[in-house]
Amino acid sequence: MTIYLHDIPLPQAKSRLDEALEATGRAGVLGIEEIPLDEHALGRVLAKPVWATLSSPHYHASAMDGYAVRSENTVSASPAFPVDLSISTQAGYVDTGDPLPSWADAVIPIENVELVQIISPLVDEPLNPSFIRIRAAVTPWSHVRLMGEDIVATQLVLPGGHTLRPVDLGAIAASGHATIHVARKPRVAIIPTGSELVPIGHPLKAGDIIEYNSIALAAQVIGWGANATRYPITVDDYDLLCQRVQEAALEHDLILLNAGSSAGSEDFSARVVEKLGDLLVHGVAVRPGHPVIFGMIGKKPNQIPIIGVPGYPVSAILTGEIFVEPLIARWLGRPPHVPLTLKARLTRKVTSPAGDDDYMRLAVGRVGEQLLAAPLSRGAGVITSLVRADGITVLPRGVQGLPAGSEVNVNLYRRPDEIEHTILVIGSHDITIDILAQFLAAHDRRLASANVGSMGGLVALSRGEAHLAGSHLLDPESGEYNLKYVRQVLPELPVKIIVLVGRQQGLMVANRNPKEILSLRDIARSDISYINRQSGAGTRVLLDYHLRLLEIPIDSIKGYQHEEYTHLAVAAAIASGRADCGLGISAAAQALGLDFIPLYQERYDLIIPPRYYNDVLLEPLIQILKDPAFKNTVASLPGYNVDQMGQEIL
Amino acid sequence: MTIYLHDIPLPQAKSRLDEALEATGRAGVLGIEEIPLDEHALGRVLAKPVWATLSSPHYHASAMDGYAVRSENTVSASPAFPVDLSISTQAGYVDTGDPLPSWADAVIPIENVELVQIISPLVDEPLNPSFIRIRAAVTPWSHVRLMGEDIVATQLVLPGGHTLRPVDLGAIAASGHATIHVARKPRVAIIPTGSELVPIGHPLKAGDIIEYNSIALAAQVIGWGANATRYPITVDDYDLLCQRVQEAALEHDLILLNAGSSAGSEDFSARVVEKLGDLLVHGVAVRPGHPVIFGMIGKKPNQIPIIGVPGYPVSAILTGEIFVEPLIARWLGRPPHVPLTLKARLTRKVTSPAGDDDYMRLAVGRVGEQLLAAPLSRGAGVITSLVRADGITVLPRGVQGLPAGSEVNVNLYRRPDEIEHTILVIGSHDITIDILAQFLAAHDRRLASANVGSMGGLVALSRGEAHLAGSHLLDPESGEYNLKYVRQVLPELPVKIIVLVGRQQGLMVANRNPKEILSLRDIARSDISYINRQSGAGTRVLLDYHLRLLEIPIDSIKGYQHEEYTHLAVAAAIASGRADCGLGISAAAQALGLDFIPLYQERYDLIIPPRYYNDVLLEPLIQILKDPAFKNTVASLPGYNVDQMGQEIL
Repeated sequence: MTIYLHDIPLPQAKSRLDEALEATGRAGVLGIEEIPLDEHALGRVLAKPVWATLSSPHYHASAMDGYAVRSENTVSASPAFPVDLSISTQAGYVDTGDPLPSWADAVIPIENVELVQIISPLVDEPLNPSFIRIRAAVTPWSHVRLMGEDIVATQLVLPGGHTLRPVDLGAIAASGHATIHVARKPRVAIIPTGSELVPIGHPLKAGDIIEYNSIALAAQVIGWGANATRYPITVDDYDLLCQRVQEAALEHDLILLNAGSSAGSEDFSARVVEKLGDLLVHGVAVRPGHPVIFGMIGKKPNQIPIIGVPGYPVSAILTGEIFVEPLIARWLGRPPHVPLTLKARLTRKVTSPAGDDDYMRLAVGRVGEQLLAAPLSRGAGVITSLVRADGITVLPRGVQGLPAGSEVNVNLYRRPDEIEHTILVIGSHDITIDILAQFLAAHDRRLASANVGSMGGLVALSRGEAHLAGSHLLDPESGEYNLKYVRQVLPELPVKIIVLVGRQQGLMVANRNPKEILSLRDIARSDISYINRQSGAGTRVLLDYHLRLLEIPIDSIKGYQHEEYTHLAVAAAIASGRADCGLGISAAAQALGLDFIPLYQERYDLIIPPRYYNDVLLEPLIQILKDPAFKNTVASLPGYNVDQMGQEIL
Repeated sequence: MTIYLHDIPLPQAKSRLDEALEATGRAGVLGIEEIPLDEHALGRVLAKPVWATLSSPHYHASAMDGYAVRSENTVSASPAFPVDLSISTQAGYVDTGDPLPSWADAVIPIENVELVQIISPLVDEPLNPSFIRIRAAVTPWSHVRLMGEDIVATQLVLPGGHTLRPVDLGAIAASGHATIHVARKPRVAIIPTGSELVPIGHPLKAGDIIEYNSIALAAQVIGWGANATRYPITVDDYDLLCQRVQEAALEHDLILLNAGSSAGSEDFSARVVEKLGDLLVHGVAVRPGHPVIFGMIGKKPNQIPIIGVPGYPVSAILTGEIFVEPLIARWLGRPPHVPLTLKARLTRKVTSPAGDDDYMRLAVGRVGEQLLAAPLSRGAGVITSLVRADGITVLPRGVQGLPAGSEVNVNLYRRPDEIEHTILVIGSHDITIDILAQFLAAHDRRLASANVGSMGGLVALSRGEAHLAGSHLLDPESGEYNLKYVRQVLPELPVKIIVLVGRQQGLMVANRNPKEILSLRDIARSDISYINRQSGAGTRVLLDYHLRLLEIPIDSIKGYQHEEYTHLAVAAAIASGRADCGLGISAAAQALGLDFIPLYQERYDLIIPPRYYNDVLLEPLIQILKDPAFKNTVASLPGYNVDQMGQEIL
């Protein structure tokens, strides 16, 4: 059997599935169930409109504590000529909510009434009050909640298709119902497949992939109002897969088969669908996530849909958003989720495959007057790009790219006010920035960081693309940090330079230092391979400075041209044996169990234009630099020094 | 014991509670629990930051199906001078996701490779391919997902206080965790109290109040991330209440006592709190909802907070939003809920008590360029005002009112796009409008209706406060409907007049017509009391028209001056015995089990300015008027005639 993978446009793929659902009578609400009206009905979707069977109040009710009267008996009352009304025949005490006596048509609040006692000459003790005395007329129906004031029997309380909120539950109860008719929850089976998959928490070897897509998919499905069954991992075995899918089909309304949806030698999903039913679509022109499968399985007309979900996590989660959510919405009879949107300007040029709808993740923040959208990693395997994304924009088929500064429509993952509380920091990465992010989260601020090296950060600052930059650029002539570069790159922009931290730079080497590297001179040894940072990075400048001091020629260093973008990527290269050593910080070495040869102390500063430094957005950040708890947390990291933290250099 | 109720400003009330929580160590997260990382962690709040313990990928992984090679062996390859690499020593087959052999530093995708077979002269059959032939160089690390491409061990994955989304669960798993530390869910006890309360579903008599606040409060609490225990109704018995509160305090973090928080003779809440602990606040200067109680109960330092929640449903639900949500938020370590907001103009003047923060419910919609906010009922008992509210605005203490046209800041209950999809209809009420609302809900439109009578609707249309008006105004001279009034009230505004429905007007009378009312002449009988519609209402015009025809003097009709605003309110007045008859429609009579004496057929039209008639917003409404399903639903109502439905009169 030949497996083909032929991408078709998104609307066409959706309509093929829609037609198949129509044909099997599964295009709308799957079933209606009557459930008790209680707090567990929260979030359920009304399958029918709710019409009031009872008015609320269901009787004329006193709106105050006081005396029920007939308003016509009060007409002549005035301050000078009060009217007395006999308690029991002309006035009756009522508490708030009590029914109005049938003879009454108004209530006089207790505070507007004088009680009159008749002292009988025949008995010593005063009797209970016999009259109320009033000094103002009352209009008919004053201080009365009329029957039906809130709800009149027969009126529409809520339309069908409405998702129930707490207040709705109250209103439905008030309108005379004790149960409600809601859409049955769709049942979704999630079957992870792949011989390379291992469950979370199990020991790992190279080639193992932690199976977590099923957790994310199940959580999506639950959040959208359906039930999810998560199956154990099925290895790449065609017969086993067929068997499990058939089993799941018996008790579910939808099967999500993840992954095996591509056209590789062990991608069985399409074949499984063909065997058990009809393969409708194999490949949709969307990125990431194009190897999607739609099919219907089981015997007609009782077929149920199956979706082959691609394996990369970003693809899997977007498949959920694009295809599964609208399906669950229609099965619940509610409108599909519509994201909040805003318009923002791209910080850089992007390209896009012309044939696909391209879903691009974006970090969004307001810098000055501009809402900026910085494209995040496009990799389908980079789940953190989706975690960090503030939103997504679709570059539609036919669009091959957009220049920097283009306005794009962003479908938001966060609320617009969170975007307004986002601090954009750009430049060199340091773990202190992560800790700062953690502290800021407690102060209603979100820190979004982009790692482009110290010099890249200054350039971004000059373009107005961030609120502040992190930089540790050594001036090889003066031995000073940052000052000279700030003047060069930002001649027009006034900035403050604030010390964040002092940190140890040194050589990261494999555990137990097997090649006995002792000083910077050793990196030029012929048996040593080096891994470098990208040009413009502060660590690179530091390296080049000391190489010159020691007169070590660059071309004597094997691997000098191999560049990484973060300290931790350098550490990872050494940990994996790809290189023997690299200059970096102690924390990164420790993180991956490497040895560290300390060489230099350097200063890592924050570069902040005064217009942002003085802005309320950055206020908590400036405060945190003085917070002993923050200082202590940073000081506890190996190789960090907080003596100068918060000091103004410029 | 004296019960006092002294309203204090909201911030002061909150800070008294805050101080008491600080003193008992309950001002922050109540506890941390370690839970498995699975789909049930959705919506939980991280109690600690998540730092990566594993890189992702945790090895260098092939990003394609193809051959792993060393890039330096490919440098000289070109289309004319291909390079052959020996399979096994220089090139190894890898599937996507496979670990890269340690000697390799790049992958060549399978489609860029030619396979070379050596045909041995010694054997007949071709051997397996021995070489790959390539015609282009590859750069180092191309088509390789480097270790740590997504996540580098030690980096911050998510900050503490973050509420977990599906994608976060995946990222946390990828970063090496199998469990997470989340804030323990606060446990909230909800105790409904009041001798007048009956559970939903039970038979009702006058004075009974259906207990549903506890359902709405429990649903709120669950939606905000806590657990709720709903207790059975406790009657107004001081000792019983004390006992139940003490019981609940043993197993909960917060008690909501609803109601009995005011100062009436059976309002025990304050006394219960004083007996079991400390009464901190009795009365907060907010409307609705001012008789709120804050207290701490139990033995110091193990006291827990108790909130006395007012009894009216709107007050109860707003008490939840204003006081309970922020408390649960801090106990979970997440930020409190911040509503989306927009600015809109008040359609009418409002007044407000100067001493209170006044929470005013609003219907919001866009009419033309203007976002309009129409104040809804201010009654604390009118729960439908909260169901229908699109948002709420706070008139702060010190503000005594705002003129019509004032811009107010609206805290939204709906998403801004729902506001944009809202059709505002104003004027005379008819049950057909409710049915229209139900049909529109299936077409991504929301119908918000305000009942101000036919004439009021035309006036509102002239002021640009609605998209369309419902009107059934008879011209007593011509016998025509609406045309003359439209020309009078809207001389400048072009409008279309479309027939919605024909309906029977007649006299509603008590069941079995005990007073033997047979014609309009009977309403002037001395033994008959009448209930009228407000002046300007179409039904009122119809009445006055026929009274004149029959030469019945107005002052011969007892109750002519008693006005109601809807057909169903008139029906309710008759059902309750407050009046003997009133002119109205058959459906209203039927709804409340009244008899109906048909008298006249009248036309109910929709009046729509062409700018809205032709707008995409109203498109589904215009379509529904032609929909047989809608026609059939309306025709099935007693006394309705759909023959002219959708016909253009003007």
